[in-house]
Amino acid sequence: MRLLISTVIAAALSATLAFADPLPSWEPGASKTAILDFVATVTDPASDDFVPVEDRIATFDNDGTLWAEQPVYFQLLFAINRLQAMAKDDPSILKDDVLTAAAKGDMKALAASGEKGLLEVIGATHSGLSVDEFKTYAREFLTTQKHPEKDMLYIDMTYQPMIELLTYLRDQGFSTYIVSGGGIDFMRSITQTAYNIPTQQVIGSSSKSTYTVAGDKPVIMKEPGILFIDDKTGKPVGIESHIGKRPILAVGNSDGDYQMLQWTTSGDGKRLGMIVHHTDAAREWAYDRDSHVGTLNKAMDDAPKFGWVLIDMKDDWSRIWSGGNE
Amino acid sequence: MRLLISTVIAAALSATLAFADPLPSWEPGASKTAILDFVATVTDPASDDFVPVEDRIATFDNDGTLWAEQPVYFQLLFAINRLQAMAKDDPSILKDDVLTAAAKGDMKALAASGEKGLLEVIGATHSGLSVDEFKTYAREFLTTQKHPEKDMLYIDMTYQPMIELLTYLRDQGFSTYIVSGGGIDFMRSITQTAYNIPTQQVIGSSSKSTYTVAGDKPVIMKEPGILFIDDKTGKPVGIESHIGKRPILAVGNSDGDYQMLQWTTSGDGKRLGMIVHHTDAAREWAYDRDSHVGTLNKAMDDAPKFGWVLIDMKDDWSRIWSGGNE
Repeated sequence: MRLLISTVIAAALSATLAFADPLPSWEPGASKTAILDFVATVTDPASDDFVPVEDRIATFDNDGTLWAEQPVYFQLLFAINRLQAMAKDDPSILKDDVLTAAAKGDMKALAASGEKGLLEVIGATHSGLSVDEFKTYAREFLTTQKHPEKDMLYIDMTYQPMIELLTYLRDQGFSTYIVSGGGIDFMRSITQTAYNIPTQQVIGSSSKSTYTVAGDKPVIMKEPGILFIDDKTGKPVGIESHIGKRPILAVGNSDGDYQMLQWTTSGDGKRLGMIVHHTDAAREWAYDRDSHVGTLNKAMDDAPKFGWVLIDMKDDWSRIWSGGNE
Repeated sequence: MRLLISTVIAAALSATLAFADPLPSWEPGASKTAILDFVATVTDPASDDFVPVEDRIATFDNDGTLWAEQPVYFQLLFAINRLQAMAKDDPSILKDDVLTAAAKGDMKALAASGEKGLLEVIGATHSGLSVDEFKTYAREFLTTQKHPEKDMLYIDMTYQPMIELLTYLRDQGFSTYIVSGGGIDFMRSITQTAYNIPTQQVIGSSSKSTYTVAGDKPVIMKEPGILFIDDKTGKPVGIESHIGKRPILAVGNSDGDYQMLQWTTSGDGKRLGMIVHHTDAAREWAYDRDSHVGTLNKAMDDAPKFGWVLIDMKDDWSRIWSGGNE
């Protein structure tokens, strides 16, 4: 009898949990409805649009989609932080004006140096060390350093509604992937902690790397030089290379996500493409067409044509940050 | 009461299954013991060498480790088959002696053309079509064509003991990956069917690919030119790129697996490296140091130093093929 009673209690509890709102930080509205309807359909064995668990692939951009990206990408702030630490040990590494400006945190001079300057700062800080060492530095930065404007730890600047969405999708049998222009090792240092996404489900831009044996100890070293840019047309290519399947759901926030959204939503059967629209100048930042990071222009124009759903950060999200107090 | 009885029956059944031999095609001996001991240790929460589920990464070479590789790699036999089909439609594609020899199945002339000739045959048959089309051709070849010497379908020439090992490891919470010099798309056409390994757990050599939109229809095209060779030092690099974690178990069969085995077994804690030694001339093939495919030389010499376990195909496996009747 004891067994029977505990079974009944467990069933009742599980029914309660099933009816709890899986997306508490999402306000009622078109975005939330689109998510719930899509998931209900593709997980319903009786639906013509049912998708088996092994094909429930969902891909998410990172910068501006899962965490903030203003005033510049967190990875660039990390590179400057690393450069400052390295220059403390050996000032001679600041061998030209670009690196000197970066170490001073002179963002204006750095911006003026263009893409070439940025790549120089990335190159100086992202090579000549092992992947493991690099991940340790990145993780330390993201979990102990504060954002220059928001006075929050970087790790706390992930979006609570997106974390709820990731969790909800996994509970419904989805595999959740990050597909970002950000550096793959930089993201992998923190994705398990930040999003419960393991390293093997993180796709990003990468530099060259080599396997070498120093003494008895093999090591994978980060080398100078870009190997792969996981942005724009690179996103579907990166998805195919890592996953080998086409996603059925994709979320991005900028024109860099255009092709990922297009590739995802042009497949057969029911698909969902969504765009995080940064509309909240008070709690986060408001930007789209004219922003120097996360430019959202063509993807916003073509969203109606493809049926992509714009997430209005200000109206759709009752809470923004995973950390901090609102 | 009915509930209680069915619970007791279910418990009894599950206990029986737990005691069934998970590796029935493995003869008792050092190889089988090494596997069972390793798995028992790393899955025992009370052990100092316990490994949590998310870090139970096992990597397997494919050619010569999970399926046969004689007299030449199956992928080369597929390329010749494709070339013949293509030449039937348009004989002008056989534009030089190498391609003409390949289309005739003249392996001697093809071998004489060296690596350059082989790459030409691969290039002619592995580019200029979409990844999806290519996978369809590869899958059809592997499931309908017979091996030139063994009179078996290629799909039946996977090794039954290895399939049991893969299943056993997954039942024990491992993630099983293929890490092979073979082409990633070629393998992905069949790995779910052949090994229950999904495309996202297949790492291989790759050619360049592009994302293009033809009319309204986006497509990922295979282009000429090698992007990545997943062999020798490329194996640890490919593992890091795709998984971002170091395996705790690796199985290979040739010197091409040396660095994967070294990378795996030099990590902290308990590790297992194994080498399939082709010793069975009657049921399969017997070869090692002098073979033109699957050369096993330095890895065999260094196996004792690293503690790598040699699997003696003839003595350790009671059954070889997953398909066919023995």
